[in-house]
Amino acid sequence: MSKLYVIGIGPGGREHMTLKAIETIKKCDIIIGYTPYIGYLGDLIEGKQIYSTGMKGEIDRCKLAIRKAKEGHNTAIISTGDAGLYGMAGPILELKEEIEVEIVPGVTAAFSAASELGSPIMHDFASISLSDLLTPWEAIEKRIEKASEGDFVITIYNPRSNSRRNHLEKAVRIMLKYKEKDTPVGIVRNSGRANTEIILTTLQSIPYEKVDMLSILIIGNSNTYVKGNKMITPRGYHIG
Amino acid sequence: MSKLYVIGIGPGGREHMTLKAIETIKKCDIIIGYTPYIGYLGDLIEGKQIYSTGMKGEIDRCKLAIRKAKEGHNTAIISTGDAGLYGMAGPILELKEEIEVEIVPGVTAAFSAASELGSPIMHDFASISLSDLLTPWEAIEKRIEKASEGDFVITIYNPRSNSRRNHLEKAVRIMLKYKEKDTPVGIVRNSGRANTEIILTTLQSIPYEKVDMLSILIIGNSNTYVKGNKMITPRGYHIG
Repeated sequence: MSKLYVIGIGPGGREHMTLKAIETIKKCDIIIGYTPYIGYLGDLIEGKQIYSTGMKGEIDRCKLAIRKAKEGHNTAIISTGDAGLYGMAGPILELKEEIEVEIVPGVTAAFSAASELGSPIMHDFASISLSDLLTPWEAIEKRIEKASEGDFVITIYNPRSNSRRNHLEKAVRIMLKYKEKDTPVGIVRNSGRANTEIILTTLQSIPYEKVDMLSILIIGNSNTYVKGNKMITPRGYHIG
Repeated sequence: MSKLYVIGIGPGGREHMTLKAIETIKKCDIIIGYTPYIGYLGDLIEGKQIYSTGMKGEIDRCKLAIRKAKEGHNTAIISTGDAGLYGMAGPILELKEEIEVEIVPGVTAAFSAASELGSPIMHDFASISLSDLLTPWEAIEKRIEKASEGDFVITIYNPRSNSRRNHLEKAVRIMLKYKEKDTPVGIVRNSGRANTEIILTTLQSIPYEKVDMLSILIIGNSNTYVKGNKMITPRGYHIG
């Protein structure tokens, strides 16, 4: 029986794909995804039918994937990072009928960015997307507030686009009510891909104009510090 | 020059390792890790020097890894899941001097468990460890409280051990102040390994005696629901 696979391909670089993601793509006839993400698959797509569409085409891609699997093709729909965090696993399972679906997890951008910054996550953390396309801004603000009150490390996805230029500034203003001004902040653009750019700064000094939709932010907790050029959140081991 | 690699090997099954984790282990002479985790590497360790020690030996393992790298060996220290979330990247960077360190990210257990449960994460989430070996219990309680108030999906690591049998019950009591009694909860034991066990239940009906240190819990947000045998957190797409 044909099957629909929802695959997290990791941040982009081939080396961060799991064996299972690679093997699953190899056995599918049809690959569906957002156009720039298909590009990360390189020669893995040779000889396959590719359906790629632009931003905001998520639900159309999901419906196409379900139709192709129903028609008897082993079909892959890909997300960058993990398949289930801000990915395609949710809408596929919401829409699916009759067909068999398997989710293949992947390395999310926050962990890739963390590995490039040092060890800024290490401990309890909260992941928040600043995109209000699908979530009311008030709910996002409340989460930023509660995560800051709880002294979580905070990872920020979708920090800033042309249509929401000041969301990140608003979010930082809320975080500054609870977090110190000099809390370390790591910004990674194109994490886990070619041309990775890293900025290590503090909560009061974020260079907003350098942040875009290809950037991930990691904001420290009250114990996070910088040693050399590495951002470190200690977990509390007695280091002797 | 020799290098120290901190490698996240994923949840355990070889198929969830990244290409980079596999290639990096292959080029190291020395592999260091918690004894059960070394077992997940299978034939990757053939011909290599292995140093494995028991629980709570983390800092000794880190010091050994740093010494071996200083002595000129390409050395790998492994964590399950990601290298930087509750892993070894932090203590290595805190302790390191002179040597070069590279962190290799991996698939964390929560994403593996999510892929087995359906798509329970999908949206903003908070990751909390219930282990108070290194963190005061009061700080953990506060984070549970704030994550619940913020309506985050919550992933729970280290939910229950012999020495802290009632931490999970205490945590659930706090969550029930903010989350509905019938909030879906997924429990996965041995996620991403052989003998995976899955329980789908609700916040008021958790079978505590079946939860141990090999289990991960995912607690839904206010929109999470169960369809068939899959736990789904919608992100808010207009599914038509």
